[in-house]
Amino acid sequence: MAAKRNAVTTEAPESSAPGEGTALALDSRLSKRVESVIPKKRHEALKWFGWGYNDSEFYGQDGIICFRGEKYPLGGCELPSFTKWVEHKFDLRVDTTKPFPQLPRSYPRPVENAPFLHELKGTTQVEYSLEGIDRLVRCHGQTLNDIYSLWHHKFRRIPDLVVWPRCHDEVVQLVRLAHKHNVMLVPFGGGTSVSGAITCPQNESRMICALDTSQMNRLLWLNRENLTVCFESGIVGQDLERVLRGEGLTVGHEPDSYEFSTLGGWVATRASGMKKNVYGNIEDLVVRVRMVTPSGTLERECSAPRVSCGPDFNHVIMGSEGTLGVITEVVLKVRPLPTVRRYGSLAFPNFEQGVLFMREVARRRCQPASVRLMDNEQFMFGQALKPEKSWWASVVDAMKQRYVTSWKGIDLNQICAATLLFEGDLKDVQRQEALLYEIAAKFQGFPAGGQNGERGYILTFVIAYIRDFGLHQGIVAESFETSVPWDRCSLLCRSVKQRVVSECSKRNINYYTISCRVTQTYDAGACIYFYFGFRSTDVTDPVELFEAIEHNARDEILSCGGSLSHHHGVGKIRSHWYRNAVTETGSSLYSAAKRHLDPKNIFALGNLLPLEEAHPQAEAPPPPPATSSTPPKAKL
Amino acid sequence: MAAKRNAVTTEAPESSAPGEGTALALDSRLSKRVESVIPKKRHEALKWFGWGYNDSEFYGQDGIICFRGEKYPLGGCELPSFTKWVEHKFDLRVDTTKPFPQLPRSYPRPVENAPFLHELKGTTQVEYSLEGIDRLVRCHGQTLNDIYSLWHHKFRRIPDLVVWPRCHDEVVQLVRLAHKHNVMLVPFGGGTSVSGAITCPQNESRMICALDTSQMNRLLWLNRENLTVCFESGIVGQDLERVLRGEGLTVGHEPDSYEFSTLGGWVATRASGMKKNVYGNIEDLVVRVRMVTPSGTLERECSAPRVSCGPDFNHVIMGSEGTLGVITEVVLKVRPLPTVRRYGSLAFPNFEQGVLFMREVARRRCQPASVRLMDNEQFMFGQALKPEKSWWASVVDAMKQRYVTSWKGIDLNQICAATLLFEGDLKDVQRQEALLYEIAAKFQGFPAGGQNGERGYILTFVIAYIRDFGLHQGIVAESFETSVPWDRCSLLCRSVKQRVVSECSKRNINYYTISCRVTQTYDAGACIYFYFGFRSTDVTDPVELFEAIEHNARDEILSCGGSLSHHHGVGKIRSHWYRNAVTETGSSLYSAAKRHLDPKNIFALGNLLPLEEAHPQAEAPPPPPATSSTPPKAKL
Repeated sequence: MAAKRNAVTTEAPESSAPGEGTALALDSRLSKRVESVIPKKRHEALKWFGWGYNDSEFYGQDGIICFRGEKYPLGGCELPSFTKWVEHKFDLRVDTTKPFPQLPRSYPRPVENAPFLHELKGTTQVEYSLEGIDRLVRCHGQTLNDIYSLWHHKFRRIPDLVVWPRCHDEVVQLVRLAHKHNVMLVPFGGGTSVSGAITCPQNESRMICALDTSQMNRLLWLNRENLTVCFESGIVGQDLERVLRGEGLTVGHEPDSYEFSTLGGWVATRASGMKKNVYGNIEDLVVRVRMVTPSGTLERECSAPRVSCGPDFNHVIMGSEGTLGVITEVVLKVRPLPTVRRYGSLAFPNFEQGVLFMREVARRRCQPASVRLMDNEQFMFGQALKPEKSWWASVVDAMKQRYVTSWKGIDLNQICAATLLFEGDLKDVQRQEALLYEIAAKFQGFPAGGQNGERGYILTFVIAYIRDFGLHQGIVAESFETSVPWDRCSLLCRSVKQRVVSECSKRNINYYTISCRVTQTYDAGACIYFYFGFRSTDVTDPVELFEAIEHNARDEILSCGGSLSHHHGVGKIRSHWYRNAVTETGSSLYSAAKRHLDPKNIFALGNLLPLEEAHPQAEAPPPPPATSSTPPKAKL
Repeated sequence: MAAKRNAVTTEAPESSAPGEGTALALDSRLSKRVESVIPKKRHEALKWFGWGYNDSEFYGQDGIICFRGEKYPLGGCELPSFTKWVEHKFDLRVDTTKPFPQLPRSYPRPVENAPFLHELKGTTQVEYSLEGIDRLVRCHGQTLNDIYSLWHHKFRRIPDLVVWPRCHDEVVQLVRLAHKHNVMLVPFGGGTSVSGAITCPQNESRMICALDTSQMNRLLWLNRENLTVCFESGIVGQDLERVLRGEGLTVGHEPDSYEFSTLGGWVATRASGMKKNVYGNIEDLVVRVRMVTPSGTLERECSAPRVSCGPDFNHVIMGSEGTLGVITEVVLKVRPLPTVRRYGSLAFPNFEQGVLFMREVARRRCQPASVRLMDNEQFMFGQALKPEKSWWASVVDAMKQRYVTSWKGIDLNQICAATLLFEGDLKDVQRQEALLYEIAAKFQGFPAGGQNGERGYILTFVIAYIRDFGLHQGIVAESFETSVPWDRCSLLCRSVKQRVVSECSKRNINYYTISCRVTQTYDAGACIYFYFGFRSTDVTDPVELFEAIEHNARDEILSCGGSLSHHHGVGKIRSHWYRNAVTETGSSLYSAAKRHLDPKNIFALGNLLPLEEAHPQAEAPPPPPATSSTPPKAKL
C-alpha cells in the first residue's frame, strides 16, 4: 500500500472564478499523477492468459487445491473441502501435472496505416508500441471465449498498435488522426470486460489501434466543500480508492472487478458496485464526464448536481461501450470514509424465504451497504472454500447445532444464506443491524455470524481466479446476470436453473454446477447473478457448447421478464437481443447517434448492434413513418 | 374529493406470463379511467387568462387584498399585512376597480390542411375541435410573456385544431397522419410550462394541431408486489395522487404545479418534486416510458429496475420538451402512504448560516421529505401573507421574544427561515426531527414552530395566483431557478440579487422585489429559486423589460457556476444558452436525434435549439472531424 506516498491535497482554492472544474484543471500544478499498482507493461504484473495478478492463482499440490498469492487472505491456504467439492461435483481428480499455456511464438502480422503512423510519430508526443505482447494483452476482455482463445492461440486479429495517451488533449489528437486516416480505435481500460466489448472484431481490415488509458490516471482536483473529485478515466479502482482513503474519503464504487477495472470502463459499461445502497451505482456517482468523439468532445458545461437541460447525454455516454468515443475525465461524488464497517450473515430455511426477506428490506428501504442472498448450491460452494485451518467459524456447524436445539424443520439441502455489510457511523450501523435481524426473523431467518459475512465479501475478489483454475482442470465456467421485477424474482431463478439443467441433459452434460445469488436490491426489483460451469474433458468445443447453453439461459431470463443485463453490458455476446430490448426505434436511434458522432465508424467494436447493422456502408435512408400496419406494440 | 368513487383495485394477477406490463395492459378490463378535476373543456374550470381555477384568486376589496376560493386554506381571508407589504414595496394603492381582461371577439383564422382533416375524420375516432376558445387556451403555458400576450390579445398564432386522443394507439394514428400530411403537433398536457415550451411558434406556416392528452388519463395497472403503477401520460398530478391514496399508496411527486400539470409533462421537462428527498425526482421515479415519434415508439422492453443496455434512451425522452414525440404511458414507482406527516420550521440569524445548515444536512444525508431555506426578503413576504385572524403563530413575535430573552445578536433584517416537512413512520420522523434541530443549533438556528412550517407549504400552491393579481395591479413578476455546486451557493444568491438590483437601477426601476430560496439539496449542490417583480405602471413594455433583466440574471447565474435550469427546462426562453450548456457536440447530437426521430419536424416547438438551428432545411452535412485548431476545451 502506498497510501502515504500517494496522498494528495489538491484542495480547491477559495471559489471565485466561474466554473470550478475549469479553473482548477487549467492549473496543472494542482493535479497529481497516481502511481498505479498496474504497470504500463501490464503483463509484467497481470496474467497474459487469464484473470488477475501473475503471482495469485489456484493450483493443485499433492491432490489438494491451494491458493498462492499474498495479496489475498486466502494466500498460502490449502483447501481440502474445496478439493472434495470439485472432485465430487465434476467427478474428476485434481491434476497437478498439466502444463500452463505458453505465449505464442509469433503474433499476427500487423496491418499498418503508414500515413497514420507517420503523422502520429511526427506531430504528437503520444507513446506507442508495436510489440506483439503489448498488442496481445490488449486484444480481449475476460469472457470464457476470450481466455480460451488466448490459451489456444486462436486470435486472428489483435491490435496492430498500442498507444498510451497521457491526457485529454492527446486523446483529441489521436481521435483526430484516426478519423483522418481511417484507423480503428479500441478504448482499452482495465481489460476486465465480460461481454466481449473490447475484443477486437476479427474481420476488421483497417489498422486497429488499442488506446490504453492507463497513463491517463491523474487526480485532477478534489473539492471537499462539494464532495466531488475529478479523475482521468484510466485510473484503476483500487488506485482511486487508495488515493482517496489517504484523504479520508471514498467513492465507494466496488464492482467485483474493481482491483483492475478503470473509471472509464465503469462509465462506458454502466457499472454497478457492491455497496451501491450507500454510494450508488455509476449513474448516481457521475456528476460530469467528457467523451472525445470524432465530432468533438461531448460533455456538460456545468457541475450543478441536477439539471433539466434537454436530453441528458451523460446517459448516452454511459453505456456507449467504447463505440462512440473515448471517455477521458470524470467528476465523481465522494463521501467521508465510514467510521464503522461491520459484517453479518443470515441463514434462511430456503431460497424463497430469503427472497421474501430481500424484498421486505427493499420495500422498507433499509438496505445496508450490501446485502446478498446465495442459493443453497452457492452457499455450499462458499462453505467448501473454507481453508483447512482458518479462523472462520463453520455456518454448517452452527446450523446443525441449531437444528438439534430448536429448528426442527431445517434441511441442509434447502438452506440458503445472506451476507451483510454495514457501513456508516456506529449508531446508524447498530440501528440497521437490529432492524435487519428483526425483519429476517419474520422470514425464519437467523443470524449466522459476522465472520461468515466477512468471508463472503473477501471471497468476492478471489472467485474470479477460479475460472482459470477450472479451465486448466477441464471445467468451463462463467457467470451471467440480469435484473428483474420483484414479482418475477423467484420464478426467474427457478426457471433459469431448470432450463440450464435441461439444456445440459439434452447435451449429455452430466457434471455441472448452476447456482444463483441476489446481489442487489432496488425499489422495484433485484439483480440476479448466475454461476454456471461444467466438466468439458469429454467435449470437442467446450466454449461453443457453453455459449449455446448460456444463450438458452438468456432466452429464459428474457421470457421471465428479466433484463438483457444489469451491469455487465451488452457487448458482443448479448448483441443478438439488443434490438428487441430497446425496440426498433431505440436501436435505430442508437445507430443515428453513432453515425453522427463517429461517421467513419472508427470505434468499430461492434457492441450493442452487430457491425453491419450499426454502420451500413451506405447512409441509411430516413426511417419510414410509423404506419398502422406495423405490428401493434404492447402497452407498458 | 372523490377518492372513494375513484378507488381502483387493478391488482396484478399471480405473475406467470412474460412481461408484467404487456400482459396486464392488454387486458383492458383491468384499466380504469380516472374522473379528473379538470374537464375536457378546460376553460370551464380553469382561467383562460392566467393561473389556476376560475373560482380562486387574489382580489382587492375596500383597499384590502383578499383571497377567494374554497379550494385553498386561504380562501375567504383578508390579508391586511400583505396589502401593506405590497403598498410599501411598490408604492401603490390596491386598485379594486380595474376591469379584468376580456376574451377576444375573434380568433386567428385557422390554417387548414384539408387532406389531414379529411383523413382524421374519415379514418380515426379521434375527437377534435376547431372552436376558437379551445384553440386559445392551448396556445401557451404560464410564462409572464404568455399571460401578458393573452391579456392583450397578442397571439398571432394559436393551434388551428385541438385533438383529444384517448389512448396510445390513437396517438400513433395522429402522429402518422401529421407526419404524412406535414402538420405540426403540440403535445399539450397541463399547460403549466414556464419556459415557453408549449407556446406556439409564431412563424409556423403549417397547420398546428394541439394534441391534448387530458383524455388519456387511465390507470392501466397497479402492481403491489413491485410497487409500480402504469398511468397514461395525461393524468393530472392531483388526480394521480387521489387515486393512489385510495389504495394506500403515493408516488410522492409534488412539483408546485402538481394540481394542474400532467405526468407526461413531468417526464418531458424532467420535473422535480418538493418531496424528492423521500420519493425522488422524476428520473428516479420512472421505470418505463413510451414516446410516440414519427419514426416509431421509443421505449424499453422490460420493467427491470436497473439495466446496463447501452445508452439509456429514457434520458432522451426525459427533457425532450415536446420536440421529439408524444409521451403516452409511464410506469412509475409508488410507495406506501407515510403514517406520519409533520411540519417544522427553523430561524437562522442570516442566510449564510442557513446555507451552511442546508449543506451540513445534505452532507449527512439526513434530509427530511422537504427542507427549504428562505432569504430575509422572502421570509418577510411569507410573514406578510398571514391572514388577519388566523391560527398561525407569528414567527416574528417568537423571534422578538427570543431576542429579548437570550439572543442579543439577532437582526430582523437579516433573519431567515427554513421550513421542514417530515414523512415516514413515527420513529423515523422523530429521529429526523431530533437530528435536524441538533444540526440547526450548530449554525445558530432555533425551532420556530410546526405551524410556520405548515403555512410555508400550504402557501406553495397559492403563490402562483399572486402573479396574476400583480399583473392586474401593474406589477410584473416571475420566478426563475437554477442548481449550483455547494461552494457557489451563497455567492450565486448574492451575486444574482446584486445583479438584479443593478439592472433595475440602470433602468430607473425603483420599486421591485428580488428574493431567493434554497428549495432542494443534493450531495453536490442545491437548487435555488428566485422571485423577481417590479412595478410596471410607468413602463411601456414591461414584459420586454422583465425579460431583459431576467436575461442578465441568467448570465450572472451561469457565470457563478449555476445551471441553465434545475427543473423548469430550457424551452424557448432559455434556448439562447442551450448550445453552450451542452457544448457544440451535444447540441449537434440533439439535432441528429431530432432529425432521425422527426425527419419532417412536425414537433416544431422550437425548444432547446431555436428552430432554424435544430432543423435546417437541408440535411446537415456530416460534422467536421475534431481538429487541433478548435479552441482547447477546458478540463472538467
